Amino acid sequence: MELFFNVATTERVLEIIQSFGPLEVETVVLNDALDRVLAETVASPEDLPPFPRSTVDGFAVRARDTFGGSEQMPALLRIAGDIGMAEEAKFELEPGEAARIPTGGMLPKGADAVVMVEYSHALDAQTVEISKSLTPWENVIQPGEDVALGQVVIEKGTVLRAQELGLLSGLGVQSIPVFRRPRVAILSTGDELVSPGETPGAGQVRDINSVTMAALSRRAGARVFNLGLVRDDFEVLRSKTTEGLDLADMLLVSGGSSVGARDFTLPVFRSLPDSEILVHGVSISPGKPTILARTGAKSVWGIPGHVASAIVVFIVFIRPMLNVLSGRCSSGEAPFSRIPARLSRNLASAQGRDDFIRVRLEREADGWVAIPVLGKSGLISTLVEADGLVRIDRNTEGLCAGDDVQVLNLRY
Amino acid sequence: MELFFNVATTERVLEIIQSFGPLEVETVVLNDALDRVLAETVASPEDLPPFPRSTVDGFAVRARDTFGGSEQMPALLRIAGDIGMAEEAKFELEPGEAARIPTGGMLPKGADAVVMVEYSHALDAQTVEISKSLTPWENVIQPGEDVALGQVVIEKGTVLRAQELGLLSGLGVQSIPVFRRPRVAILSTGDELVSPGETPGAGQVRDINSVTMAALSRRAGARVFNLGLVRDDFEVLRSKTTEGLDLADMLLVSGGSSVGARDFTLPVFRSLPDSEILVHGVSISPGKPTILARTGAKSVWGIPGHVASAIVVFIVFIRPMLNVLSGRCSSGEAPFSRIPARLSRNLASAQGRDDFIRVRLEREADGWVAIPVLGKSGLISTLVEADGLVRIDRNTEGLCAGDDVQVLNLRY
Repeated sequence: MELFFNVATTERVLEIIQSFGPLEVETVVLNDALDRVLAETVASPEDLPPFPRSTVDGFAVRARDTFGGSEQMPALLRIAGDIGMAEEAKFELEPGEAARIPTGGMLPKGADAVVMVEYSHALDAQTVEISKSLTPWENVIQPGEDVALGQVVIEKGTVLRAQELGLLSGLGVQSIPVFRRPRVAILSTGDELVSPGETPGAGQVRDINSVTMAALSRRAGARVFNLGLVRDDFEVLRSKTTEGLDLADMLLVSGGSSVGARDFTLPVFRSLPDSEILVHGVSISPGKPTILARTGAKSVWGIPGHVASAIVVFIVFIRPMLNVLSGRCSSGEAPFSRIPARLSRNLASAQGRDDFIRVRLEREADGWVAIPVLGKSGLISTLVEADGLVRIDRNTEGLCAGDDVQVLNLRY
Repeated sequence: MELFFNVATTERVLEIIQSFGPLEVETVVLNDALDRVLAETVASPEDLPPFPRSTVDGFAVRARDTFGGSEQMPALLRIAGDIGMAEEAKFELEPGEAARIPTGGMLPKGADAVVMVEYSHALDAQTVEISKSLTPWENVIQPGEDVALGQVVIEKGTVLRAQELGLLSGLGVQSIPVFRRPRVAILSTGDELVSPGETPGAGQVRDINSVTMAALSRRAGARVFNLGLVRDDFEVLRSKTTEGLDLADMLLVSGGSSVGARDFTLPVFRSLPDSEILVHGVSISPGKPTILARTGAKSVWGIPGHVASAIVVFIVFIRPMLNVLSGRCSSGEAPFSRIPARLSRNLASAQGRDDFIRVRLEREADGWVAIPVLGKSGLISTLVEADGLVRIDRNTEGLCAGDDVQVLNLRY
């Protein structure tokens, strides 16, 4: 029996993952760019807004004409005209003049502030009282104040949310360079497996991992190719693995990653052209029998057949790797990927491996409480109950009730 | 000029939203069910696993035959046979007997535990030494231990993640009832607007809200119908609003929701058949000029033209309403929708309204720090910098540097 040599630490695997680069760049229109990752830093092609813009309904004025104005002692200004929406004033505002302006309207030349209609009182068609002292640029967005021409607006590696797309559309940017979405091929191996549509015979169970890994991959932004079930046979597995690598950037092989007589994942990965075994065994629980190999720019993962272990391996390693392939900026930890909580009970742990414990989160007055989900580690029902994972570091003997923990998001 | 009468509190609007029901139920196959909301509680149609299953490679035994066994004093058992993968043993295990079994294998009748191969030593073809005392069901998942026949596995209202889909596929469930995804129609009104593909003339700006609201709606699980730009004209807006209501469950009208002379949203909403104005003005900043009306089971929202305000209104009210239409279970607060942080500086606030302040999150040793993003409130660039929103309650005068705050997720 072959053993796991050089079992890698969590940190070492995450470091190896960084040696893969982002995928190539493609151009997409804004409407297709939600959640995609920007491949080139965008500088603004113009000023936004392009003109001095009123943020209220009222009168455009020269601020200094209102200095000292108050309810008791209003400034008296001559009404030079009305400014319509979406039009340029035909006149320049002279000292002592005001002009009616709507919210969003363009200030006339000479004006540098807008007084809200509530602080104005038109005495007649030519004269308005202003009962407020304005500071320059009050109630005005100046040209380029939101975004200036040439200003960096979105950095390479940014995941594009609604607000980034909105800003780009406001700047007239119609399409943008993004990193290609990773393609992930998925297969499950195991003679005991039948596909989810079949009724298992004696000793058989339905394949759970294909559906689960496909959904996790999609959720992480990947396109999925499901290659189905493969029986425990070197040649068949090798042929399907080659097929998966032709289709995809990353292949996930569930099952057969351990060191038993019928575990063919490692020998198959070794037999691939120019393959390099980067990881064979990881010091985590669950999830120790994890294999990562590289062939060219592509990766193949051997992951445990137990679906609960497979999910942990995906969340801890494969999701970060998909982030690398997607070109996501990896400086620092993404907000909302973890949430602080207080642990509800003691958790013992073996030293020498990182334990990932499933927890439910419950809200209490002073914050979230992380409640470990009990049950054997191989059960998928425990994952259904769980909101997140708590890591117990391999250098500790466990955690105590009341300890502050960071809960890794399983609800993303 | 019409005023905002009965400006509603945040809580009141959220309460009104609950008066809308979930959409109708449809059936989808598992592969299309990621992120959908389960419409009926699922009870398991069978036991999972369907048979007693070994979780290790080793020997199936009767646990009591190993009691007291140790390295010094191993139990001696007769090897009754080998159990292959995906097969039922042809024999029953008698007292004093063991049978070779692979991980995932089906235990023979009579066996109630499996000893790992590491604790076994085959003396010859008929005899094995067991150097460990086993407890009953050690290294075995019993029938129905993961999920028992008839057990509730997923509750109505659950958002389906990878693990829920995996469990359903393991139980042979191929398609499930889910709530229909909400349809959202979107239009922007304002004479100053040009579409993002056009070059604005003097006094004109590109429409930002359509792209932004579409992306936010998609991110919240909706299908989007973009109706484009409408000029400030009662009849045109009324006709487009009617068109939107024919297409969708919810219509978002950006711009024209305030109380100026050219704000037609309220009169148009009033003129719809059987319409009821539920909200006209909300005590939040930004976002006060918000209108919600109902016509039949459908809703129409008037939202501010300033995109920064529109985003806040979406996050605070429209996203929760889409959750209601989607049938999401709303008991309690969803983990990961907010993150606790420490405020970096004092924030003043006017009483009588809830302020929603944009913040960046930075990681420090003891947790997240929320750093308010400076700049005028109407600027979309401030939203691009922001990771989340901090609410300052209307009954407080502000928050102090160092205060614990809950940051509403803008990175979802």
